Amino acid sequence: MTEVVTYRPEPAEMSYTFGGREPVLRVRPGTVVQLYTEDCYGGRVRGVDDLPSRVCEFPYLNPVTGPIHVEGAEPGDTLAVHVVAVEPARDWAVSSTFPHFGALTGTHTTAMLHPPLDEVVWMYDVDVAAGTVTYRARRGDYTVALPLDPMHGTMGVAPAAFESRMTIVPDAHGGNMDSPELRAGVTAYFGVNVPGALFAVGDGHCRQGHGEVCGTGVEAAMNTTLILDLVKGVSTPWPRLESDDALMSTGSARPLEDAYRISQHDLVSWTAELMGLDQLDAYQLVSQAGEAPVGNVCDPNYTMLARVARRYLGGVTAYDGVHARLRETGRAHLAHR
Amino acid sequence: MTEVVTYRPEPAEMSYTFGGREPVLRVRPGTVVQLYTEDCYGGRVRGVDDLPSRVCEFPYLNPVTGPIHVEGAEPGDTLAVHVVAVEPARDWAVSSTFPHFGALTGTHTTAMLHPPLDEVVWMYDVDVAAGTVTYRARRGDYTVALPLDPMHGTMGVAPAAFESRMTIVPDAHGGNMDSPELRAGVTAYFGVNVPGALFAVGDGHCRQGHGEVCGTGVEAAMNTTLILDLVKGVSTPWPRLESDDALMSTGSARPLEDAYRISQHDLVSWTAELMGLDQLDAYQLVSQAGEAPVGNVCDPNYTMLARVARRYLGGVTAYDGVHARLRETGRAHLAHR
Amino acid sequence: MTEVVTYRPEPAEMSYTFGGREPVLRVRPGTVVQLYTEDCYGGRVRGVDDLPSRVCEFPYLNPVTGPIHVEGAEPGDTLAVHVVAVEPARDWAVSSTFPHFGALTGTHTTAMLHPPLDEVVWMYDVDVAAGTVTYRARRGDYTVALPLDPMHGTMGVAPAAFESRMTIVPDAHGGNMDSPELRAGVTAYFGVNVPGALFAVGDGHCRQGHGEVCGTGVEAAMNTTLILDLVKGVSTPWPRLESDDALMSTGSARPLEDAYRISQHDLVSWTAELMGLDQLDAYQLVSQAGEAPVGNVCDPNYTMLARVARRYLGGVTAYDGVHARLRETGRAHLAHR
Amino acid sequence: MTEVVTYRPEPAEMSYTFGGREPVLRVRPGTVVQLYTEDCYGGRVRGVDDLPSRVCEFPYLNPVTGPIHVEGAEPGDTLAVHVVAVEPARDWAVSSTFPHFGALTGTHTTAMLHPPLDEVVWMYDVDVAAGTVTYRARRGDYTVALPLDPMHGTMGVAPAAFESRMTIVPDAHGGNMDSPELRAGVTAYFGVNVPGALFAVGDGHCRQGHGEVCGTGVEAAMNTTLILDLVKGVSTPWPRLESDDALMSTGSARPLEDAYRISQHDLVSWTAELMGLDQLDAYQLVSQAGEAPVGNVCDPNYTMLARVARRYLGGVTAYDGVHARLRETGRAHLAHR
Repeated sequence: MTEVVTYRPEPAEMSYTFGGREPVLRVRPGTVVQLYTEDCYGGRVRGVDDLPSRVCEFPYLNPVTGPIHVEGAEPGDTLAVHVVAVEPARDWAVSSTFPHFGALTGTHTTAMLHPPLDEVVWMYDVDVAAGTVTYRARRGDYTVALPLDPMHGTMGVAPAAFESRMTIVPDAHGGNMDSPELRAGVTAYFGVNVPGALFAVGDGHCRQGHGEVCGTGVEAAMNTTLILDLVKGVSTPWPRLESDDALMSTGSARPLEDAYRISQHDLVSWTAELMGLDQLDAYQLVSQAGEAPVGNVCDPNYTMLARVARRYLGGVTAYDGVHARLRETGRAHLAHR
Repeated sequence: MTEVVTYRPEPAEMSYTFGGREPVLRVRPGTVVQLYTEDCYGGRVRGVDDLPSRVCEFPYLNPVTGPIHVEGAEPGDTLAVHVVAVEPARDWAVSSTFPHFGALTGTHTTAMLHPPLDEVVWMYDVDVAAGTVTYRARRGDYTVALPLDPMHGTMGVAPAAFESRMTIVPDAHGGNMDSPELRAGVTAYFGVNVPGALFAVGDGHCRQGHGEVCGTGVEAAMNTTLILDLVKGVSTPWPRLESDDALMSTGSARPLEDAYRISQHDLVSWTAELMGLDQLDAYQLVSQAGEAPVGNVCDPNYTMLARVARRYLGGVTAYDGVHARLRETGRAHLAHR
Repeated sequence: MTEVVTYRPEPAEMSYTFGGREPVLRVRPGTVVQLYTEDCYGGRVRGVDDLPSRVCEFPYLNPVTGPIHVEGAEPGDTLAVHVVAVEPARDWAVSSTFPHFGALTGTHTTAMLHPPLDEVVWMYDVDVAAGTVTYRARRGDYTVALPLDPMHGTMGVAPAAFESRMTIVPDAHGGNMDSPELRAGVTAYFGVNVPGALFAVGDGHCRQGHGEVCGTGVEAAMNTTLILDLVKGVSTPWPRLESDDALMSTGSARPLEDAYRISQHDLVSWTAELMGLDQLDAYQLVSQAGEAPVGNVCDPNYTMLARVARRYLGGVTAYDGVHARLRETGRAHLAHR
Repeated sequence: MTEVVTYRPEPAEMSYTFGGREPVLRVRPGTVVQLYTEDCYGGRVRGVDDLPSRVCEFPYLNPVTGPIHVEGAEPGDTLAVHVVAVEPARDWAVSSTFPHFGALTGTHTTAMLHPPLDEVVWMYDVDVAAGTVTYRARRGDYTVALPLDPMHGTMGVAPAAFESRMTIVPDAHGGNMDSPELRAGVTAYFGVNVPGALFAVGDGHCRQGHGEVCGTGVEAAMNTTLILDLVKGVSTPWPRLESDDALMSTGSARPLEDAYRISQHDLVSWTAELMGLDQLDAYQLVSQAGEAPVGNVCDPNYTMLARVARRYLGGVTAYDGVHARLRETGRAHLAHR
């Protein structure tokens, strides 16, 4: 029988790093966890006059819920995180520019002599029943409904090598990958670096464009249901995703071509291994059949995914079929709640 | 009545640059041109033993058909190129690695001390009726049919500033953008830099993955039907695409984030102008509604596109509706040929 | 009277991160510390057959001595570290390639399909009296003496935002900048992020080329004498260096132009502030008078320095003259030991 | 006996590309050429109110003197250009910001939503006798004399593959490398791509900082004396420099680490070949003995040099000693003029 744990962190329990924190929860592999996650502003931006640079305080940005210790997880294992549901917790969401953050502005890294762009907040109406979020121009009256497509920008485990990283950083441990692919129905795989894996999740988006060009998505608190499971004795070098239709590898680095290289290299290697293909044959197959959905082009590392449809891989099974099993469990959980 | 011109270049008429060549053809705006384009290998790789580095000779690579002088085109105008049809000219196509070329190998630019990867050729069967190209592993027996999705990797006009560029380079004049978006049904816009525009096209792919990671797509000679038209007095800073569903801007540069920045910046500016939006309001809208399909991550400049669905732009019309008109003309042409 | 503390860590006391460790030592501001630092291989590569990938174990690489708690250091202060002496502790030193590490090889980030370059170790003779280190070819008999120019590749404090970073990473907290400028006679400034600053130092090089292109310098254990002092209430955004002749700012990031931008931006801002110049006037002055010594082009972030000679700055004094005072103290210490 | 040719172009004879132009002059190998070069503004910025964006017209920027046809030069040969003298032609020089150009501003490539930085012109006094150029702040009264160190930002030959490139672009054919190393006493080597080589030179700087961070040096018209000679049957992949003390390779690319990689790769290969060293032995030697002077970090490609002192190479002779011979000829020419 499936164990179900519900956890809503107090503000003081929020985490701001992957690594360096004691777990807030311990679960057995296979547990369904129902979590509340706060938005990347810590819930402090509630109207257009709440400028993030005034109401938020560094480094208390992008809080995550966790870390969660998964019993039995050891370095060298893989944590499988099946996303059952990502449900907006409020009927509004928010996006903004932020001084010296985003892809079309000078930043602290791409350092320039320009003053920052204007700091502007946009409030979105969230209509779960209609499946929309509504954009409203701030300096005009244009309004348009966009499809609701909830996802988590930030998900990962404690890093290797005794590191602790701000939640805003994506890297080999996961983190702030900001990929719209991380939505319900997907299983994410993370290599375990420390006992218990120390999983955490946050930064819900009602939707985001590719690359999160202004620096933020349609940011929202979420009620999120996940299944945390283990694949023992199998390592995973960079976070991978599996959907019913596709296999995906991620890469997070700068410049952006290195994020592309990491993700494509991992997908070529993974495909070769799964299919028993020669490496160059897999390189050719991914070259013609592969896709490259962009994650973020604004965070401390940029993120790209490499994706190949299962139907081009002859129905191959990855990680011993854990995605299909968790998918079934997730559907059953939703049907009975 | 629509004028139709058919042109099949002799081998000696092929061009290897944008700019620096006399036109091979002169047409009036609105002309339907039916062109033959050779593949990127100049048609010399016809079997797995035809290693490109042996049968091809630098700089006679990636031949294009053209340049075509469009009467009345002047600097400051925009050339509209509607793609009516892209049809494989043979029942086979080819892909390969090439020494020190591709995204997962050291190159002459990302210079490394490694010897080149193995040079390998893959032959594909092209079945137009079935709508497939068939991949076959070289060092094993795996075979899979992939969807036929014909496109042109290379399309553009003579560059500005008296430049002449190898056809393998994508930049503000177009060139080797290697984007799968450049398929039938799309209208491409190029800013005119010299009298007559001097348009050329080549590098047909039966399909390609995102980024063309191994360096080549499923390369094929094509019979291609285009309509060449002019938008007088309207300039276009970087190549743009329009489909029935979406507006797209391109950017070509290194590192890859700069290709992303150029394309997103142009789409933000274009959207703001078309919709009468404030620039930051357009930045926000593109941030949440925009997509970022990858072109190439292997050519001398990398290419990204920025795309936004028309349905989020309130049915706006770009370039005075030229896409819809050419789309209609193209359909009529296909119906009557 | 100057306090002098001598500390030689036991192997188990070595640190492998900045941040996340309890201090091994507490000193008052102004203390002279005499430290032993182990080489980046942990002293385990002692001959050409000691291949690093075999004798070293991840993540126990690049050990640092520390962290040292400096009493009274608070976030917002600046730690001034004057380098009195860097003296090779052995009469040999070592360099090597390392699989998938270095500037002219595919790496885990610039991911490629090539197998690693050969792993090769070079042993150097160190002759302090002659002031030389002697290179010997491994696959031939060429030998040449190069000038001894001892320095520390790694120096820094605990990072901000609860982060803990591998010692191999350079960033705003310092770390593995691998700049030959960090030699005796220089004062380094680090912004303090946590109480006590938690300073550490390691990765001595008998010398290195610009960029450390193969991934390592002439690696050596060192006996190093530093003075640790505080500048209260003055913050420092990125590590800075001051010599008798020049002011220097550092930047560490990828791609390399961002390391350049950060360092030049900081030097422009610092110069403007010190000289009372308008920002664009400082930009112009640094543009014509500035230098840009390369640190590393092989670590997880690349490092560049921006340098301007004092003589072009009208004899300006930085940080209230702390460099001159510590320089004097350091000379006196050397004269009397 | 040495042939001497003096040439001062009329304004209409200036070139704005490498390639695509008929030669303005034909000389025999070994000829001393005395040339006048205009500054990068075409001489139109003569005071602080002459804003470049108003007085200059694209693409008539960065004029070069040439192209010069060197008789007998064929593809596969190397053109040796010995710089005898670079002498400022006026007693003033000029620098400026330029909208969306420079390392600390958004550009057309690193596209951002910021308005351009202020466009400001700085006039310098040039005192050849004193050996100084004098900086004056525009928004304050700070003044300082900097050493005169005349050089050419732009020097090169016609590119390969029928290309023609704006003079502002540095690449394998040379062009706008903007390296302070290209001063009197140096011999530059360029691979010949077309019959006659078609050499041109321009963009004199009285001095520049490393990277030309604001986008321009201390720009000046020059009277420049060169010797143009040929090394038959020896190819040169990227421009190289030779001084009495050092060998240098250049690389021009984006991102900046690729410019570094190209230059270091070429220096490693060149050193290995000259010294008969194994490639990894040369890699190690350059890693410890090499330097990496920055050229530009603002042009369409960035430029880095890789340098190794001759004294670490056992007195090796490159290109059959052509530098020493031309150096002697140059000295004799100066002594007798």
